[in-house]
Amino acid sequence: MKIIVDGFGGDNAPLAVLEGSALAVKEYGVEIIMTGDEAVLKKTAAEHNISLDGIKIVHAPDVISMEDDPRTLLKAKKQSSMAVAFQLLKDGEGEAFVSGGSTGAVVVGANFIVKRIKGIKRPGLASVIPTINGKYMLLDSGATLDCKPETLMHYGMMGSIYMNKMFGIESPRVGLVNIGTEETKGTELQLGAYEKMKEAPYNFVGNVEAREIPAGAVDVAVADGFTGNVLLKLTEGLASMFSKKIKDMMMKNTKTKIGALLLKDGIAEFKASMDYSEFGGAPMLGVQKPVIKAHGSSNAKAFKNAVRQAITFAESGMIKEMTETVAAMRFGDGEGEE
Amino acid sequence: MKIIVDGFGGDNAPLAVLEGSALAVKEYGVEIIMTGDEAVLKKTAAEHNISLDGIKIVHAPDVISMEDDPRTLLKAKKQSSMAVAFQLLKDGEGEAFVSGGSTGAVVVGANFIVKRIKGIKRPGLASVIPTINGKYMLLDSGATLDCKPETLMHYGMMGSIYMNKMFGIESPRVGLVNIGTEETKGTELQLGAYEKMKEAPYNFVGNVEAREIPAGAVDVAVADGFTGNVLLKLTEGLASMFSKKIKDMMMKNTKTKIGALLLKDGIAEFKASMDYSEFGGAPMLGVQKPVIKAHGSSNAKAFKNAVRQAITFAESGMIKEMTETVAAMRFGDGEGEE
Repeated sequence: MKIIVDGFGGDNAPLAVLEGSALAVKEYGVEIIMTGDEAVLKKTAAEHNISLDGIKIVHAPDVISMEDDPRTLLKAKKQSSMAVAFQLLKDGEGEAFVSGGSTGAVVVGANFIVKRIKGIKRPGLASVIPTINGKYMLLDSGATLDCKPETLMHYGMMGSIYMNKMFGIESPRVGLVNIGTEETKGTELQLGAYEKMKEAPYNFVGNVEAREIPAGAVDVAVADGFTGNVLLKLTEGLASMFSKKIKDMMMKNTKTKIGALLLKDGIAEFKASMDYSEFGGAPMLGVQKPVIKAHGSSNAKAFKNAVRQAITFAESGMIKEMTETVAAMRFGDGEGEE
Repeated sequence: MKIIVDGFGGDNAPLAVLEGSALAVKEYGVEIIMTGDEAVLKKTAAEHNISLDGIKIVHAPDVISMEDDPRTLLKAKKQSSMAVAFQLLKDGEGEAFVSGGSTGAVVVGANFIVKRIKGIKRPGLASVIPTINGKYMLLDSGATLDCKPETLMHYGMMGSIYMNKMFGIESPRVGLVNIGTEETKGTELQLGAYEKMKEAPYNFVGNVEAREIPAGAVDVAVADGFTGNVLLKLTEGLASMFSKKIKDMMMKNTKTKIGALLLKDGIAEFKASMDYSEFGGAPMLGVQKPVIKAHGSSNAKAFKNAVRQAITFAESGMIKEMTETVAAMRFGDGEGEE
């Protein structure tokens, strides 16, 4: 198994990417193809005693920055670490691709270099987020703002297959994010999507209110990219606010500080349950090869996890299943076949 | 000052409404006009030793339930406690109205019985929500799904005036909820709203990402009713999840339980800072009289707070200011006049 990794994607690149990749080689016996400025990569590895065994560097002198227009990936920045990596993926040089770089550029590369699955017009970027006692997939979390009812129906299908193949969840519960549970709620988009989703070949559990999602009401929450992005970012913002509040609560005075020491075990468990780097990066669903967007702030461990996720993604055969399911749905004979 | 209160609105009505109203009479010297089944109200008050001094009951035999179509308020349920209350408000029998009943019915009554401010086509329901070190107003939080750029621009104006008059915030920072801070982000709705908001007579600070809202980036967060409702409900859901997680963390074992005891002061402060019943109910902005939707689960204290909020709302003259501002904006000479 060969995984292509963007050596210059992310706030901590290339060091964290190199470290994470070396860990992945060691732990999973995978081969890494890393794109980026060869001299810089070799120098960084040497300086930090990172072994390049199992890591093949493919030179790419340029970098896509967060400020660049994502479309420069296709023209002006064709020699960037990300563009070269996408081309390698398209050419079959590796089975999957991981990047911690610009989300917009990952979306552009997935759509226009790797290309979409036949029948899927708008791929989605999916995030896996902790709930009270597990996790759920949110998609789209920001790749596609102008969704159609059919887009949302497809997201449900792809999310369902992903959660099944990646985490072994039987018949994942797919919900449509809405402002009430009744079938008549929402805008035209939700009304239309509900109609299509209730006929789709997966376990559609109806509308879900955002209040119920953290409580674990669904395994897959489907939304247009605007709503999904707002949900994702509010989750991040509130998690950060609550963490800070808890810290303040513990640091209030000497008595509370002693209390906090006694709570150590509980705090560790709490933190672990909220750590979503464990779930890896955000998969881009609806394209012909596995593409994973790692968080921009990923550290070595997060990159290692994203490589593990890429391996499972590629091995699972889920893209084949998505392709076949959408083909069957297009010819109208796919209902209830799951 | 006379405040009209829906005696049968809310999960704990009429008892909590009666208790909260009696407290308000005592603490604020206000007069309450309460609508609802007179016999039941008098019996409940007697059974619980609640004084009806300062509370005038106006008989209304019917009740709007959460299951009723909100529009029944205008016809089939004209004799409900809520419909009668709205009519009293319209007729000037009281200065403001508080209900803990069906949100949909409150929106219908505000729009079609009390009527909109001239120039405001779509009133908004606003919620005040805690941040890390203060609070912000979110509007619309679910009254209007089909917003236009002008609607959002008006929300910014009304939210700004409310936060100024109600909480004394000078020049409240108004942000447009969006998926990035750049002017070019979002759907057509956000692009259009940005254009209008940057010319509007208030302190528009540009787009705000949902991640920054809990950190206190804005005093007023403007969104269409779908996005706003999702934001509000996710906030509730995550707050409830984190509270439960914190409890689990403290109850893990004997050591953590002792730690939790030592944390008591900190916990009390944490809880108080997250208690948004302190901010009262959700004001309906854009209608000709003060209308406040109290939370359905309001207890006596929350109803008392909502009455206090109604008094301030009515006394502040903010509806006059909103009316004048929108009139000035309509004739194109209102820019920067604030």
